[in-house]
Amino acid sequence: MVIVLAADATESDVEAIVDRVVNAGGEAFVSRGVSRVIVGLVGDVDRFETLNFGAMPGVHSVTRISAKYKLVSLEHRQERSTVYVRGVPIGPDTVTLIAGPCAVETPEQTLEAARMAQAAGATLLRGGAFKPRSSPYAFQGLGELGLRILADVRDETGLPVVTEVVSAQDVEMVARYADMLQIGTRNMQNFGLLQAVGEAGKPVLLKRGMSASIEEWLMAAEYVAQRGNLDIVLCERGIRTFETATRNTLDISAVPVVQGLSHLPVMIDPSHSGGRRDLVLPLSRAAIAVGADGVLVDVHPHPEQALCDGPQALVADDLRILQRSLEDLAGVLGRGVPSWRSRRAA
Amino acid sequence: MVIVLAADATESDVEAIVDRVVNAGGEAFVSRGVSRVIVGLVGDVDRFETLNFGAMPGVHSVTRISAKYKLVSLEHRQERSTVYVRGVPIGPDTVTLIAGPCAVETPEQTLEAARMAQAAGATLLRGGAFKPRSSPYAFQGLGELGLRILADVRDETGLPVVTEVVSAQDVEMVARYADMLQIGTRNMQNFGLLQAVGEAGKPVLLKRGMSASIEEWLMAAEYVAQRGNLDIVLCERGIRTFETATRNTLDISAVPVVQGLSHLPVMIDPSHSGGRRDLVLPLSRAAIAVGADGVLVDVHPHPEQALCDGPQALVADDLRILQRSLEDLAGVLGRGVPSWRSRRAA
Amino acid sequence: MVIVLAADATESDVEAIVDRVVNAGGEAFVSRGVSRVIVGLVGDVDRFETLNFGAMPGVHSVTRISAKYKLVSLEHRQERSTVYVRGVPIGPDTVTLIAGPCAVETPEQTLEAARMAQAAGATLLRGGAFKPRSSPYAFQGLGELGLRILADVRDETGLPVVTEVVSAQDVEMVARYADMLQIGTRNMQNFGLLQAVGEAGKPVLLKRGMSASIEEWLMAAEYVAQRGNLDIVLCERGIRTFETATRNTLDISAVPVVQGLSHLPVMIDPSHSGGRRDLVLPLSRAAIAVGADGVLVDVHPHPEQALCDGPQALVADDLRILQRSLEDLAGVLGRGVPSWRSRRAA
Amino acid sequence: MVIVLAADATESDVEAIVDRVVNAGGEAFVSRGVSRVIVGLVGDVDRFETLNFGAMPGVHSVTRISAKYKLVSLEHRQERSTVYVRGVPIGPDTVTLIAGPCAVETPEQTLEAARMAQAAGATLLRGGAFKPRSSPYAFQGLGELGLRILADVRDETGLPVVTEVVSAQDVEMVARYADMLQIGTRNMQNFGLLQAVGEAGKPVLLKRGMSASIEEWLMAAEYVAQRGNLDIVLCERGIRTFETATRNTLDISAVPVVQGLSHLPVMIDPSHSGGRRDLVLPLSRAAIAVGADGVLVDVHPHPEQALCDGPQALVADDLRILQRSLEDLAGVLGRGVPSWRSRRAA
Repeated sequence: MVIVLAADATESDVEAIVDRVVNAGGEAFVSRGVSRVIVGLVGDVDRFETLNFGAMPGVHSVTRISAKYKLVSLEHRQERSTVYVRGVPIGPDTVTLIAGPCAVETPEQTLEAARMAQAAGATLLRGGAFKPRSSPYAFQGLGELGLRILADVRDETGLPVVTEVVSAQDVEMVARYADMLQIGTRNMQNFGLLQAVGEAGKPVLLKRGMSASIEEWLMAAEYVAQRGNLDIVLCERGIRTFETATRNTLDISAVPVVQGLSHLPVMIDPSHSGGRRDLVLPLSRAAIAVGADGVLVDVHPHPEQALCDGPQALVADDLRILQRSLEDLAGVLGRGVPSWRSRRAA
Repeated sequence: MVIVLAADATESDVEAIVDRVVNAGGEAFVSRGVSRVIVGLVGDVDRFETLNFGAMPGVHSVTRISAKYKLVSLEHRQERSTVYVRGVPIGPDTVTLIAGPCAVETPEQTLEAARMAQAAGATLLRGGAFKPRSSPYAFQGLGELGLRILADVRDETGLPVVTEVVSAQDVEMVARYADMLQIGTRNMQNFGLLQAVGEAGKPVLLKRGMSASIEEWLMAAEYVAQRGNLDIVLCERGIRTFETATRNTLDISAVPVVQGLSHLPVMIDPSHSGGRRDLVLPLSRAAIAVGADGVLVDVHPHPEQALCDGPQALVADDLRILQRSLEDLAGVLGRGVPSWRSRRAA
Repeated sequence: MVIVLAADATESDVEAIVDRVVNAGGEAFVSRGVSRVIVGLVGDVDRFETLNFGAMPGVHSVTRISAKYKLVSLEHRQERSTVYVRGVPIGPDTVTLIAGPCAVETPEQTLEAARMAQAAGATLLRGGAFKPRSSPYAFQGLGELGLRILADVRDETGLPVVTEVVSAQDVEMVARYADMLQIGTRNMQNFGLLQAVGEAGKPVLLKRGMSASIEEWLMAAEYVAQRGNLDIVLCERGIRTFETATRNTLDISAVPVVQGLSHLPVMIDPSHSGGRRDLVLPLSRAAIAVGADGVLVDVHPHPEQALCDGPQALVADDLRILQRSLEDLAGVLGRGVPSWRSRRAA
Repeated sequence: MVIVLAADATESDVEAIVDRVVNAGGEAFVSRGVSRVIVGLVGDVDRFETLNFGAMPGVHSVTRISAKYKLVSLEHRQERSTVYVRGVPIGPDTVTLIAGPCAVETPEQTLEAARMAQAAGATLLRGGAFKPRSSPYAFQGLGELGLRILADVRDETGLPVVTEVVSAQDVEMVARYADMLQIGTRNMQNFGLLQAVGEAGKPVLLKRGMSASIEEWLMAAEYVAQRGNLDIVLCERGIRTFETATRNTLDISAVPVVQGLSHLPVMIDPSHSGGRRDLVLPLSRAAIAVGADGVLVDVHPHPEQALCDGPQALVADDLRILQRSLEDLAGVLGRGVPSWRSRRAA
C-alpha cells in the first residue's frame, strides 16, 4: 500500500501516519521526493484497509499496489507520453535521432562529431564524460572537463546534451551541464542513482540492463518516477545471450512489449547492441519500423582513433544514408515528422 | 581438405584416392551426394598437399578448407541468391510472404486459412502435417493425411506448399507432396535429416535452432549444400534467452550478420519468436526494414480453436494491415516488388 | 486423456475406441509400442469422461493427464529407480563411472582407453562410433566399423558398451552391438529417434539438450518411456549461456531438481560441460557430492592426437585421482559402494 | 601501461610524469588511492617504453599491462590467499560457513538467526540492512537501524558481521558497524562503489554479477584491489539463463576456473542461486567438493514470516545436517579444519 501525501502535508502529518502503521503491527517507509512525500506500507494490507488513512490530514491518495510498477504503467496514463528535452520531443509523433561520440575526448573531436550529427538530422547530442569501463585500466572519461566541452559544443551548435551519470554523488554536478541524464546499462539497478536522478529535475534516458527483464526495467523506471520525475525515456541496447557474432543481442521485440505495458517513450541504441558499424544502419531501420520513438547512435570523425568503441561509430556517409532512411520510414509509418522538423519553442 | 569428384568419376577413382590418403597416414570420408561424390580428408594437411590429388583421374577440384562452411559462404558466390519455389522467388529483389496455419487440422480450416493468406498477398502456403511437440501427449499432426490436404489446397488455390519434415525416413514421402521442405528449429542439427533433404531435389527452408549460433546455422546449411542442394532459405525464428515476456527473443541482427557471411536468402518468422499475436505486425515491419527477404506467419480462421499455437495466429484484419505494411516498406527500401507481383513462369 | 490397452487387445478394440472418440468430436492418436498400444485423446476431456472408455474391451487403463510427463515422474513410482546395464547398476545406492574415448578411432586406441578406464574403476565403457559434428567437414565417426571395435573391446575387457545413436534408421543396427544407447544433446528433441530407442529393448542414456529446460528434458524421457522402455538414465552435460570460459555451463542444480520430479537416475558429464581437462576432477567431485548417480568422462591414451575433443580427455594419472575421490566421497555420502564393487550377475 | 608511485612521491613528481605522457601524444589518468597513486597511460605503448619512466623521481614501478586485471591474478601472487575477517579465516585451508538472515528485521529475529547459525558452525554472521530490491515498493531494509542491530548481535554472540553496502556515500557509515563489506550482484559493476570499498579498510565480499562473465568479475575485483585493498573474497551466486526451475543457475565451474586465474578465495551462495530451500544442502555439498573456500547461506527462525527471500532460508534441522556434511567433506578433501575450529586471535 502506498500513501501519497499532499503538497502541503506537514512533518507531523507524516508522523501520525507512521504511528498508525506501526501500532497496527506494520512498517512504514517514508520516501521524500522533491515534490512530494510517499509512505510505503509493509505488513497486513487487509488490516491497513480498515484504518482509513484516506481521511487523515495531509493525505492526497491511498493506493493498494498490486503491480510491481504503477506510475510508469499504461494503466496509469492511458496515452503514450512525449518527453521534451529543451524543447526537442521524444514521443509517438516523431522519430528522434540522438547522435554523438561514445566518449568526449577533445573539444575538436566533440564539435566535429556534433556537426556531423546535426548535418544528419540529429536534434540531441550524446557524449560520455563519465565512462563505466569493465577494466580499471581502460579510459574512464574526462569527467567534469568533458561536461564543460559538451556544454561549449551545445552553445556552438544549439544541440541539447544527453550524457551519462554514474554515481549519485555526481548527479547534481552533471545536471548543471546536461539537458538529459543517461543511466547506463550497468547502473539500471543502481537504485540510489535512480532515486538521485529522479530528484534532479532533468529528463532521464534509462538504458535497459544487459541482463534485465523487461519487467525489471520498468521497475527501475518506477524508482525514478517515484521521486516525482516522469520525464523518462527507455532505451533498449541489447541483452546478453550465447550468440557471439554480435556484442549483445538487440531485443527488438522489447519495443512493442514495452508499449503494451508503459506509456513511456522507448528508443533503440543499435550501436552498442551490435558493436559493429555495418549493423547500425539496418538495425536503425528496423528500430523505426518496429515503432521505436527514435535511435541513439555513436558517431566519430575518426573512428580508428576513438578511445572507446570506435568499431561501432558511424562516419559521415553512413549518417547521410541514415537520415534518408529515417525520413522515408517515418513517412511510411505515419510519423509525419522527424523530430528535427518539430522542435517546439523551449 | 575436400576433394570434389567429377560427375563421371568411377568407383575405382574414389578407391584410388582413399588408398593414397590412408597410405599417407590420413583418413578419408566419402560422402555420396545425388550429383557428385565428395571425399573429406582428415590428417596432416601439409602432407596431403604434396600428394597432388588434383592430377588423379576423376578429380574435379581439391580445396583446402579453412572456413567451417564453404558452399553457402558469400565468398563462394559473390552475389546474393534467389531461390525459386515453383516459380515463386525468395531473394534480394522481392519481399515474400509465406503464411498458413501452424498445423493442418481439417480440409476446411486449411483451405480457409489459405484463402486468407492469399488475399493478404501470400504467395506460398505453410502448414504443418508433422509437428514436433515437446510433450508426447500434445497433438503431433495428421501425418500423410495432412500432406494430402495441403496438396488439395494447393490445387484449389495455386499456392505452392511449404511443410516441415521431421525424420529422414519421411523425406521422400513428404517431398512427393511438398514444394519446399522445412527443417524446424529442433532439427537444425539433426544431421541425417539435413543430408536427406539435401538429396530430395526440393528447396529447403532451414530454421535456426533456438540455441544455435549463427555459425552453427550456416554449418547446418552446409550439410544440405554438400549433398548438392543449394536452394536453401534461412529463417530466423527467435533464440532462447532469460527474457520471459516473449516465447523466444527474435535475433533481428542475425539478418544483416548472415548477409555478410552467406549468399543465401534469409527470412524471419515473427509468429514463433514472440508467440504473441500483438507482436507479429511490428516484428514483420522490422523484419522487412532490416533487410529480410520475407516473413513467415501463422494464420488461422479461428485461432481460439487452434490445436497448436493459436495465441500467435493472425486473423483476417491483421493480414490486411500486414499486406499494406509490406507493400509500403518494400517500396521505401528499394525492393520494388513484393513476390506476389513477380512470380515467374514455373 | 490417455488410454492404455491391454496386452491382448485386438485391432478392432483399437478401432472401436477411435470411433467413439471421433464421434464425440475429438481426435485419437494411436501409438503402437513394442509391448502395448496407447491411444492419446485430444479434444473436450470433460465430454470424454462421460464416455466410459474404461468399460470397453481391451482397455487396461484410462488416465486424465494433467502433467506434461507422467511415466517418468516421481509420483508414478514413489522410489528412485536403478537401471541395470548388463548387470551394472546405475541408481541411488551406487556411484557409477562410465569412461572411454569421445570417438572410437582405432582398435588399439579404444582398447588402451578401456584398460585405463577399467583400472580407474569404470564399469561401463563409452565410445562414439557416430559423432554428430557441427561442421560437415569434421570427423564424423567410424560408423559400424567403430561399433565392431567397441564390441571386440567389450569381449576383451568385460566392460559393457554405451554408445550414441544419431538416427532412427540406425537404432536396430547399433542396438546389436551396444549395451546402452546414448541420445546426444543435439538429438534430445529428435522425437522419432526417441521413439525408436524406446522400442529397441536396451537401456537409454538421455543427455540433456544444451538449451533444453529441465521440463523439456523430462518430456523427452517420456517419449522413450511411452514406448514401453523405462530403463532411462538422464545425463546433465552443460547448458548454453553467455559465459565463454567454459564450453557450456554445468547446471549442477539440475540433479536435485530432477530428483524432486522424477524417479530416473541422473548422471553428470563433466568433460563435455567444461571442455577442459582441468575442470573434470573438481566437477566430478561436485557431481557426486550433489547426489548424482555417477559420472561420464572422456579418457584418451594420447589426447594430443585425439580426433575429437582431445583437450578435455583425462589421462592415466587423472583417473587414479578420480577413482580415489569417488571412493572417498561415496563413503561420506552414504553410497556405500561404487558400482565397481556391486555388479550383479547379469 | 601502469606507473605505481612510491609512498613518498610528491605532487610535482606526478605532474612531471603526466607532462611527459602528454608530450608524447598520450593520455595519463591519475588514480589516487588511500595508500598510493597510480598513473594509467593510454596511447602508444611502444613509444612510452622509450621514455624511461622508471628512472623518474617518485616512481615505484612501471608495468606494461597485458591482462585486463593484474593485482588479483594468480601470476601476481603465486599462492592462494587467505582473507581474515576479525580473525576468521577464509582461504585454502578451511571451510568457512557464513550464515544469517537475508534481511535484518528485528533484534529478536536477528539474534535468533545468529544463534542458529552459530550452533551450526557458522563463524561469520550475514544480514542485510540495505536491500537492493527490484521493485521500489518492496521492503528496502532497515538502514542504519539494521546495522546497529547487527552490531549488538555481534557483541552478544561474538560473530563478526558481513553486510551489504549499496552506495558509495554509505560506505564509511556501514564500515563503522561491519567487519566485512558485501557488494551485491546488482552492484558488481558499480565502479564508484567498488573504489569506495577499496578504500574503506575492511575485507570485501564481492558477489558475481548475475550476468557477468568471470573475466568481468575479476576486473571488478581489480577495481577494489587498485585502491590498495586485496582482502577480497569472491562469491558465486548464480547466473541468469533460460532455465526457470531455479531462480538462477549456479555456475559451479566458476570456482575452479577462478582458482586457475586468481589467488583470491572464492565462496558459493547456494541460497540465492537456487532460491529454493530444498537445493541448499545438495548445492552446499557440491560447493565444498568442487573446492570452494566456504558457503554463504540464508537462515531464518520463521521463514514463513520473512520479509525477504523466505522460501530459500534454512531452518534449524537443515543447519545441523549442513554442519555435519561440511565437516565430513572437509575431512575427505584434505581441508583438515572447518573455520570454526581455526579462528586465529584477532
